[in-house]
Amino acid sequence: MNASRRHMVLALALAALGCAEEPEVDLAAEEATLRQIDQEWVEVAAANEDFERIVSYWSEDAVVVPPGQPPVVGRVALMEMVTSLAEIPGFAVSWESDHVEVSPDGRMAYMTGTNAFTLPDATGQLVTTRGRAVTVWRKNSAGEWKCVYDIWNTAPAQGS
Amino acid sequence: MNASRRHMVLALALAALGCAEEPEVDLAAEEATLRQIDQEWVEVAAANEDFERIVSYWSEDAVVVPPGQPPVVGRVALMEMVTSLAEIPGFAVSWESDHVEVSPDGRMAYMTGTNAFTLPDATGQLVTTRGRAVTVWRKNSAGEWKCVYDIWNTAPAQGS
Repeated sequence: MNASRRHMVLALALAALGCAEEPEVDLAAEEATLRQIDQEWVEVAAANEDFERIVSYWSEDAVVVPPGQPPVVGRVALMEMVTSLAEIPGFAVSWESDHVEVSPDGRMAYMTGTNAFTLPDATGQLVTTRGRAVTVWRKNSAGEWKCVYDIWNTAPAQGS
Repeated sequence: MNASRRHMVLALALAALGCAEEPEVDLAAEEATLRQIDQEWVEVAAANEDFERIVSYWSEDAVVVPPGQPPVVGRVALMEMVTSLAEIPGFAVSWESDHVEVSPDGRMAYMTGTNAFTLPDATGQLVTTRGRAVTVWRKNSAGEWKCVYDIWNTAPAQGS
């Protein structure tokens, strides 16, 4: 073989070798990213001021399903939900995630955890309701993780 | 180049070409498979007889989170749950899935829908409670879809 042919064979051999390996996704890094995004989201939600930012963690087509309430579908409805809640005196939300699992291609994930909503009862007394939640996440075409589905239910009266 | 070198170059070129394409996943087929598995599961659950089979749709490490009850973790605990429910006179469960989304690599999915549990109340009268559910699915190393996380909450009193 002459030099240019050797180079071509070498290039093809390298391409073929690269092919044998699966595209590498650093799942630990994706999980860490998701946990960081989620932690930022908790802080932004707790501050209860920057509604655009609170809503930005959901995808445009996100579905949120609060217990005993109709599903809230899409960012416009979610913005209404977030601003309505913020007007309630004493309203607070917080959550803590535990398990995170990312699909092998790093494109879908789900996160489980517990949450707490504080709202006034009929007498105006603030009551905190504890729940268990799952969020499903999708990486969009810009490479950003967005929450696409968000549901929780109420924990047993005595702990969970 | 001689014949054997030409063959080698051709083989490498084909390998490199194959490499340029993403591994093809037929997402529509995966979605159809998931819907079929889910439909079978509803029927097996409604029959309320073959408990081993009912439980087999969950992964070994599945977590089920019923509203107001502690999470049920793993197949042994799930078998206890399923057999305990079956002993309750008048118990019935059914569900209907709507949205299914599969990760691009066909390895993780989530499915949303509505469900209905019928159980006797304190007076023995049968009451049906309607809920909204999400199930998260993982394809195991044998290529089988298994439900890994299963949570629902109660729909609003008047429809959902």
